[in-house]
Amino acid sequence: MTGKIKQIAILGSTGSIGRQTLDVIRNFPNRFRVLGLAAGKNKELLARQVGEFKPDLVYFQGDKAKIAGMGSGFEFMPPEEMAGHPRVDTVVIATSGISGLLPLMAAARSGKEIALANKEALVAAGSIITSEVKTNRGRILPVDSEHSAIWQCLRGENKKPARLILTASGGPFLHYSREKLRDVSPDEALKHPSWQMGRKITIDSATLMNKGLEVIEAHHLFGTPFAKIEVMIHPESIVHSLVEFADGSIKAQLSYPDMRLPVQYALSYPDRLDNRHIPRLKWDQIKSLNFAPPDTVSFPCLEMAIEAGKRGETYPAVLCATDEVAVDLFISRRIKFTGIAHLVEKVLEMHRAVQSPTLNDIIECDAWARETALSLADSNVLC
Amino acid sequence: MTGKIKQIAILGSTGSIGRQTLDVIRNFPNRFRVLGLAAGKNKELLARQVGEFKPDLVYFQGDKAKIAGMGSGFEFMPPEEMAGHPRVDTVVIATSGISGLLPLMAAARSGKEIALANKEALVAAGSIITSEVKTNRGRILPVDSEHSAIWQCLRGENKKPARLILTASGGPFLHYSREKLRDVSPDEALKHPSWQMGRKITIDSATLMNKGLEVIEAHHLFGTPFAKIEVMIHPESIVHSLVEFADGSIKAQLSYPDMRLPVQYALSYPDRLDNRHIPRLKWDQIKSLNFAPPDTVSFPCLEMAIEAGKRGETYPAVLCATDEVAVDLFISRRIKFTGIAHLVEKVLEMHRAVQSPTLNDIIECDAWARETALSLADSNVLC
Repeated sequence: MTGKIKQIAILGSTGSIGRQTLDVIRNFPNRFRVLGLAAGKNKELLARQVGEFKPDLVYFQGDKAKIAGMGSGFEFMPPEEMAGHPRVDTVVIATSGISGLLPLMAAARSGKEIALANKEALVAAGSIITSEVKTNRGRILPVDSEHSAIWQCLRGENKKPARLILTASGGPFLHYSREKLRDVSPDEALKHPSWQMGRKITIDSATLMNKGLEVIEAHHLFGTPFAKIEVMIHPESIVHSLVEFADGSIKAQLSYPDMRLPVQYALSYPDRLDNRHIPRLKWDQIKSLNFAPPDTVSFPCLEMAIEAGKRGETYPAVLCATDEVAVDLFISRRIKFTGIAHLVEKVLEMHRAVQSPTLNDIIECDAWARETALSLADSNVLC
Repeated sequence: MTGKIKQIAILGSTGSIGRQTLDVIRNFPNRFRVLGLAAGKNKELLARQVGEFKPDLVYFQGDKAKIAGMGSGFEFMPPEEMAGHPRVDTVVIATSGISGLLPLMAAARSGKEIALANKEALVAAGSIITSEVKTNRGRILPVDSEHSAIWQCLRGENKKPARLILTASGGPFLHYSREKLRDVSPDEALKHPSWQMGRKITIDSATLMNKGLEVIEAHHLFGTPFAKIEVMIHPESIVHSLVEFADGSIKAQLSYPDMRLPVQYALSYPDRLDNRHIPRLKWDQIKSLNFAPPDTVSFPCLEMAIEAGKRGETYPAVLCATDEVAVDLFISRRIKFTGIAHLVEKVLEMHRAVQSPTLNDIIECDAWARETALSLADSNVLC
């Protein structure tokens, strides 16, 4: 312990990662304090969180009036401002989709320690973000289980890795043919076999888009070329990722799929805390760990995402924006499951990239992609 | 690279680990130089090694006359002296059995960096050795694949591990009943399914005695209590061991079973060298990694060894000595495979331990155990 209590702002506190972050903090009142909470959807839960954790800074849905009745002793503050607040030590960015971009940028500009659970913002604006983090001597601490695994495996090593191997559960439709995938329902897609997560990431796991975004995320977090990042299907979700070093030795990180572990590691790093609520791996229950290459024919989103990552510029932003729209359209049953890949492919094809984009270019391309995706869907071209 | 070429003495240069150490050194002439070679059995091979690596110090079978004809420009020097020679940076102790004890002690007293492939010496005299190493500011670098794995997983971590999980292939007789084991032959026992190793360690792998010795070795190398060390059967020999930390996160080290990797890691640490001769794990060939608890009924040596380790004093020395004799007796077909465990059990029962033993006590108990084991075998009590 450093002796100093870490002051934490959580953006997206009522979502899956936000709630698990608070669950971790609840167990270590002498190490962590909630300085700020920001949420966008669940007002009742936010009110309860405010009552329990007594933050100094609170945000809900862009409107000061909306936090009236949650008590007193706190200040209304938008996420972008909260992320750069001088008293904040660590910003947990646990929002979903591109909404994390501006707060992430604010935290990066203020040189904060950023516990990043939102991958889309880093995917869309990777080089801009990492450059700001570097300039301002901040740090991004990965919260995604795969990137936390890689970060843990890299701990203490003195050279860049030779290869990163990201594992993927394969989602609920592992071994489905492309034909069979046409008719899967949102309810089926929302039932993930090993992880309890938010809706957007659960659908992204079913299409393997999530793994493609994670490849891009790993590229930015660890400075690893795309050619050195691989994906392996591992249905048990016990091995969260692996790193191969120059000598051919591989390290892997294992645990049950429980997001509290990577969340806690990001908050407590370099220490590891004994949290009795996080279950220990029981080896007598694990008989076999299985691995297979991904099926890139049935799940074209994986390679599509990696390709967008390699092309860079504004392609990753368009990828993220279109996917976000496509997932919404699928959940509301306006396109089929396989329509997600079609829509993303189509919008990427139509996109004219902006070279060396600024943050504004990224935001504009994001808006263009959403608009284009919606109009393609409306015109029924892909459904 | 430090720029300074590391001067290496190899004790047991013609054995399996010795040859693989030279194979590694051959690839990195700008990093390593062979300063000394010592061997006890294979004169022809030693002569070829002397011709190729041109060491300054050479030893064969305790007799200066025996190295005549191997060329000139080198000095005859016994292993105990070589291990402490002022110009030696790293001593590789690759001898088999208790013969490694005195050279290990000499290296420890001289504060050398010790790449330790011989587990028996550390098992027999663990506390004495580790205390000498600490006093003289030396360091033991594990070469056993399991301990190298643990050492790699501990790299960069700032606290003691919560649990060590040593993996065991299970040897050639995995799933054999105790009854079926009675009639296995030395030839069958010498065919290890995944590792190419020396004869003593191959038989020890078949009885699981090797894994028991490794538990004691891990206890001394990492200062881990026996209660926090577990053994798991993993027939593929890809995961070489695992470490669980305070937060429940587990790290594992993986590679094909190839001793050149842990040898090289010990020599090059903290660097990792790209050695094109060491094969990279091919994931498309690894479909499944399997784990199961060991069968302690069919393989009683495992718990017998751990029990001797827990009791400490001179029990581990008696364990090692008796096992060495028993393995020889089995290979020469004088006792059955199951007789190894019987003989070790019997001699341990008869042993009256010396408390807080000195090195001399250890050596005396070693001699007593050998004599007792042989006379029990001669009297046909156990065969």
